[in-house]
Amino acid sequence: MATPMPFNPTTEGADLQRRYREIRRQSCGLAAQLSDADATVQSMPDASPAKWHLAHTSWFFETMVLLPHESGYTQFEPRYGFLFNSYYESVGARHARPKRGLLTRPALEEIARYREYVDESLLRLIDRPVSPQLRALIELGCHHEQQHQELLLTDILHLFSENPLRPAYAVTPRRPRAVAPDSSCGYTQYEEATVEIGHDGEDFAFDCESPRHRVIRPACRLANRCVTNREWLEFMADGGYEQPLLWLSDGWTQVQNQAWKSPLYWWEEQGAYFTMTLHGAQALELDAPVTHVSYFEADAFATWRKQRLPTEYEWEAAAQREPCTGNFADSGLLRPLPAAGSGSGPQQLFGDVWEWTRSSFSPYPGFRPSAGAVGEYNGKFMSGQYVLRGGSCVTPAEHIRATYRNFFRPDARWQFSGVRLAEDA
Amino acid sequence: MATPMPFNPTTEGADLQRRYREIRRQSCGLAAQLSDADATVQSMPDASPAKWHLAHTSWFFETMVLLPHESGYTQFEPRYGFLFNSYYESVGARHARPKRGLLTRPALEEIARYREYVDESLLRLIDRPVSPQLRALIELGCHHEQQHQELLLTDILHLFSENPLRPAYAVTPRRPRAVAPDSSCGYTQYEEATVEIGHDGEDFAFDCESPRHRVIRPACRLANRCVTNREWLEFMADGGYEQPLLWLSDGWTQVQNQAWKSPLYWWEEQGAYFTMTLHGAQALELDAPVTHVSYFEADAFATWRKQRLPTEYEWEAAAQREPCTGNFADSGLLRPLPAAGSGSGPQQLFGDVWEWTRSSFSPYPGFRPSAGAVGEYNGKFMSGQYVLRGGSCVTPAEHIRATYRNFFRPDARWQFSGVRLAEDA
Amino acid sequence: MATPMPFNPTTEGADLQRRYREIRRQSCGLAAQLSDADATVQSMPDASPAKWHLAHTSWFFETMVLLPHESGYTQFEPRYGFLFNSYYESVGARHARPKRGLLTRPALEEIARYREYVDESLLRLIDRPVSPQLRALIELGCHHEQQHQELLLTDILHLFSENPLRPAYAVTPRRPRAVAPDSSCGYTQYEEATVEIGHDGEDFAFDCESPRHRVIRPACRLANRCVTNREWLEFMADGGYEQPLLWLSDGWTQVQNQAWKSPLYWWEEQGAYFTMTLHGAQALELDAPVTHVSYFEADAFATWRKQRLPTEYEWEAAAQREPCTGNFADSGLLRPLPAAGSGSGPQQLFGDVWEWTRSSFSPYPGFRPSAGAVGEYNGKFMSGQYVLRGGSCVTPAEHIRATYRNFFRPDARWQFSGVRLAEDA
Amino acid sequence: MATPMPFNPTTEGADLQRRYREIRRQSCGLAAQLSDADATVQSMPDASPAKWHLAHTSWFFETMVLLPHESGYTQFEPRYGFLFNSYYESVGARHARPKRGLLTRPALEEIARYREYVDESLLRLIDRPVSPQLRALIELGCHHEQQHQELLLTDILHLFSENPLRPAYAVTPRRPRAVAPDSSCGYTQYEEATVEIGHDGEDFAFDCESPRHRVIRPACRLANRCVTNREWLEFMADGGYEQPLLWLSDGWTQVQNQAWKSPLYWWEEQGAYFTMTLHGAQALELDAPVTHVSYFEADAFATWRKQRLPTEYEWEAAAQREPCTGNFADSGLLRPLPAAGSGSGPQQLFGDVWEWTRSSFSPYPGFRPSAGAVGEYNGKFMSGQYVLRGGSCVTPAEHIRATYRNFFRPDARWQFSGVRLAEDA
Repeated sequence: MATPMPFNPTTEGADLQRRYREIRRQSCGLAAQLSDADATVQSMPDASPAKWHLAHTSWFFETMVLLPHESGYTQFEPRYGFLFNSYYESVGARHARPKRGLLTRPALEEIARYREYVDESLLRLIDRPVSPQLRALIELGCHHEQQHQELLLTDILHLFSENPLRPAYAVTPRRPRAVAPDSSCGYTQYEEATVEIGHDGEDFAFDCESPRHRVIRPACRLANRCVTNREWLEFMADGGYEQPLLWLSDGWTQVQNQAWKSPLYWWEEQGAYFTMTLHGAQALELDAPVTHVSYFEADAFATWRKQRLPTEYEWEAAAQREPCTGNFADSGLLRPLPAAGSGSGPQQLFGDVWEWTRSSFSPYPGFRPSAGAVGEYNGKFMSGQYVLRGGSCVTPAEHIRATYRNFFRPDARWQFSGVRLAEDA
Repeated sequence: MATPMPFNPTTEGADLQRRYREIRRQSCGLAAQLSDADATVQSMPDASPAKWHLAHTSWFFETMVLLPHESGYTQFEPRYGFLFNSYYESVGARHARPKRGLLTRPALEEIARYREYVDESLLRLIDRPVSPQLRALIELGCHHEQQHQELLLTDILHLFSENPLRPAYAVTPRRPRAVAPDSSCGYTQYEEATVEIGHDGEDFAFDCESPRHRVIRPACRLANRCVTNREWLEFMADGGYEQPLLWLSDGWTQVQNQAWKSPLYWWEEQGAYFTMTLHGAQALELDAPVTHVSYFEADAFATWRKQRLPTEYEWEAAAQREPCTGNFADSGLLRPLPAAGSGSGPQQLFGDVWEWTRSSFSPYPGFRPSAGAVGEYNGKFMSGQYVLRGGSCVTPAEHIRATYRNFFRPDARWQFSGVRLAEDA
Repeated sequence: MATPMPFNPTTEGADLQRRYREIRRQSCGLAAQLSDADATVQSMPDASPAKWHLAHTSWFFETMVLLPHESGYTQFEPRYGFLFNSYYESVGARHARPKRGLLTRPALEEIARYREYVDESLLRLIDRPVSPQLRALIELGCHHEQQHQELLLTDILHLFSENPLRPAYAVTPRRPRAVAPDSSCGYTQYEEATVEIGHDGEDFAFDCESPRHRVIRPACRLANRCVTNREWLEFMADGGYEQPLLWLSDGWTQVQNQAWKSPLYWWEEQGAYFTMTLHGAQALELDAPVTHVSYFEADAFATWRKQRLPTEYEWEAAAQREPCTGNFADSGLLRPLPAAGSGSGPQQLFGDVWEWTRSSFSPYPGFRPSAGAVGEYNGKFMSGQYVLRGGSCVTPAEHIRATYRNFFRPDARWQFSGVRLAEDA
Repeated sequence: MATPMPFNPTTEGADLQRRYREIRRQSCGLAAQLSDADATVQSMPDASPAKWHLAHTSWFFETMVLLPHESGYTQFEPRYGFLFNSYYESVGARHARPKRGLLTRPALEEIARYREYVDESLLRLIDRPVSPQLRALIELGCHHEQQHQELLLTDILHLFSENPLRPAYAVTPRRPRAVAPDSSCGYTQYEEATVEIGHDGEDFAFDCESPRHRVIRPACRLANRCVTNREWLEFMADGGYEQPLLWLSDGWTQVQNQAWKSPLYWWEEQGAYFTMTLHGAQALELDAPVTHVSYFEADAFATWRKQRLPTEYEWEAAAQREPCTGNFADSGLLRPLPAAGSGSGPQQLFGDVWEWTRSSFSPYPGFRPSAGAVGEYNGKFMSGQYVLRGGSCVTPAEHIRATYRNFFRPDARWQFSGVRLAEDA
């Protein structure tokens, strides 16, 4: 039986080179404003140091592409195979995740040299004709790197939020778009229908987005925009964090154990709310989407509103009809901020906040993981996680699509995660 | 708006009295072989003392039925409201779950008196004409008590397994039926179809089994019997507990942290395997279904066999066609043990072991929790749990049905939980 | 070299038999008011079930005396060797301490039979002439049993304190003597002197009380009575539990982590303080010695008073001059409660509360542990513990003496532990 | 009542300036070989980042000297008061200790500027005539800084030991002196005597070294040198880490929980032992003193040898007769390494390894903490710690003396801690 290809490699020759170069350059750009120390520290086990993200993405290309496919390839430093493997059991032992922040050496500069070495080797490799399988692996590596670009920003925000000096990462805004002040939230109605969900096999997608399959989408209404900070303050004012009946049982345990009283990164000073952002401490923007909330909080908010979160099917079926444009963190530039809001049809679907769905991250009917080590990419995480859709203001624009399934544990709050409401129709 | 009734109360008048009496009597019967100490100790936070089960089920009738519906009802002991509330936030404060085993008082005898007091009060109440709503609540209480009958046995087995003397709970066999020795496992094929899933509203069911709705069941094959202990030994011999690539990521963490090497309750002595049962230590019965395995183990076993677990839809659609008869723990009597196995069509569906499905416990489309305190029964547990189907050898026979959704965390092993394999067709 | 005897066996023949019988009988008496469940549950890892105390003390005689010294002795139940070994590494494996409460079997009745069996065997053995070494071992076993008599009461109080019903263990008072209301506390002055400390070798003593040796006792003053509950309330009212500067660093960590706000077992209701005792809930007796305080609390209280705790040398030198009479829990009878207080010379030295000293539990110069398994009795605990002196209202009267060194961790609160103040002179 | 001075300030005028400058310069020198990242990361809660040590010692001068004694002094950065307070409750809130490693800002360079600012301010202050009290505080600050110089090196070694690349901190040797190969260990005999212990009040000493007082030193013998790595290998080969009877009870718990099998930083490769040092990975030097052992290990080793650890009294009485010269880490230069060993009289007393004593860290008779915030320096740590004597190869030479009492918890291993044996005579 032929080994199934993880996806269709559609990027060819010079295009692949250009794309590879561009993505690799963007990653370095993200670290340009970080000191060696900023890039080294790990602020919690769930987060990784910026330096580690830069090294691990290079390790991915070295391990998955160069070592098996470039004869005579010499590793930059053989011990990096141990240091920068994330979780691939099939390629050997690895450094313990909670200890990633202890690696003050190699220095950020040395990692930059590692990146150059891998880039030169890889570009040399793809200067020659390469098989579709290999092109597919490289494109996978590019998307993998884009995931880590987002994680690098997410993790830096967490690190800086732990510093009482509240340093700013960047001047350029990277934040979700606000809607018009106090605009009410419209809903779009969908009738019951059999819809097709999942990747259709023409462009790149991760294995977990396949196979495309039919599901019965019940009649429902989806909010045209995300829940705002203003609405979240109402939830808080109404005792949202104090009423156990609003919460899933595990969620209420978290509220009590972690003393949650507001979204992550919020604090109150003299009656006003502030929040920690990539631009440092900021007054809370009332009409921007709430962000840095867990699934448990999203679900409790929806219960408080006597509504619910959408399923990933409902979300994807709605998003299929909309253009995938948004507010992405692309090349360091941000699109202008049009007023999103109560217009006709769902808005803010892409590029503002990751939207929690009520769907557990589980295999689609007929799912088969990719062959080889990259088969560990998604499938083994299919327990204990919920799907988020749409991408956030720190997601690279070219990295998102309607079928994209992000996933995190229901108590995770450090992602740029928000809420879109749904209800039965 | 009228309060929706949690289900249709179909048991009327004298029948309800008979049923109530019978179920309450069975619970006492289960504790008849326990000492005061046996009935008091809590062997882990997930388990509860037998005495607590006997008291809590009485508290349920007192709190949900007698206090709101019997004017002038005097509580047996007002402080029991605090001691024996399990998790109902809406009815007040409660004793901490991990401390249930510290209540050496009230003694088992005192709990027996409490039960008699509640029984007399409740039978007096339903001696008068009662509303359908009230009958529904009482029937809910009966099913609630049947759940705790099973938990009582499950928890006693765990307690006794922790005792190096390995005491036996009972002589009467309560164990899953074995198949014919070494019989191969046949499969039943199902074509893709739109099927109806969920409770149809005529008999009793919990709120989470509704509403009935259509889903697209993909083409698949389901094993005609459960995985046996003999097959599990092959998995172990092949290094099943040592190969990370077979496991979900969270599962592998458990294998390492808990040093799992076999199902719960197994041990090896001089080359032979033994297991702790309600009848004390027993040589492992090779052709009986494997039991006391977690979801993580069930999933790893299926991966090792290049198969998968069924979804709850696949299971229910298959079970709709089969008679709900089995090997239940009913009235202390067990059905004879016919050889189950490779016959035509799925067997061992009901009453041997709870079968893990790959479906997370989540709300059906249009799900609405019951009104009132009993609305906390199921909905708030809809995160972090997987659905199990079919009932086990310690489930009361009248308590099971094809639409029944049991649920536990993926690392839970102390239930009578086993595995039926499935595969894409 | 001859094996050193652990102490001088001074109790001979019929006296030894009488003493053995009496002590063994007293232990059973302590359990007479307990149910099987009361005697089985372990309320925290530091505590042991009453049943375990009764079995372990029998195991001690069986293992240390009968097995090595009675040829042909048959164990009552060989598996008890594993179940009831406390911490003797030299006599084999043992059941994990935190799991002692899971042993619902053997039942309390069965342990009673075990005790009878051991008693008959041992009395038969000492009916014959026995060596001094053997008599010494039996006397050690008697004192060991007396220690466990006190622990049984201490642990039962803890268990009952965890029960919201607050059951009473006994009607007979077992509590520290109060002083005359509001009496001021006098001090006794001691001049600097070289004093002799430690056991002089004529009567029974544990190995850690030897050898007797000279120390330089500085000039000091010791309080004539213990700190009272009334004084402790003043400490609380003055913010004693809120001022970090009063506390040892580790103590302050405990205050914060455990949310200490008063001695263990106290609570406030409508402005009055109550405390849990062996007689159930009681209004706080203001002129009784404070009890159930940790070393950290004792030390903080002394700092608040600009005083200090005595060293064990100061305490012992003072107690050598006083008669060893007190308020002991002897044979279930309590001495009358004379008013203790500000009279001349230290009072309440013996039999009210164990008095924390500022001395770490460490070896006396020239200390050598007893030979054999009983050498594990004390020496291996000589780290992380503080010495307490004097015995409490639940200490058997014949078990105490001026040289006795009890020891507990500085955060332990469940013992009958109190405070006597000292200061430099 | 006059405030007692913490010690006699004997360093005057220009001498004080010279000394201050020199010590401050040495601290910077220690960090010269560290990157910003090296200086930022905290490898465990017990350790602190190098940057933190540099900042905290400056904070000490700013808070204890400049703010109270220099009118009009402006803080370099007011928020540093929160960030760099270690444990002084009396001077306000502080950053949580386990989070010290999250402060990637301020950068190492910024801390260097902070140091310069404090230095200029302080030197300006002491350019004017200053009171003895103030001189005393400054001298205390100098000794405080020397303590942190040692901790900086100790903590860097721990950090680098956690890095699989095993980086070297320095080329210059900083290691304990070896003795002549295989030399046997002589003992010096001491007769029972009343000796004077503690600081005599003429030079600088910490408050816990006072008051000088008499103790009865029993007849004993002290080893003339420290236990060597060669001897430790014999202990290991004889199953030292596998025999519970050699260990204190708490020590054996650590051996099992932490899987101790050798001193910290050792590992085996193909039959030979290596150890992590400030110079990177090194083959184990067999005749050098064992180092990085806990009190528990030191005590077990002594028990294995049927000997014991010395008391701090025995050690100090012996050291009073010896010159305080050794192998100190002074100004980056190390003394030559003469062969230490079995000569007459104790050797290696100062400057090789800190020597565990069997004495708990407790107050001397008549001890009074210094007045003011510096009173928190020692007294509040007087529980749960053991005294170490003599100073190590990373202790500044001018910082040590015979009365010096260092203290750590009995499970601490990351200090340069070793063992000198003693026995009763």
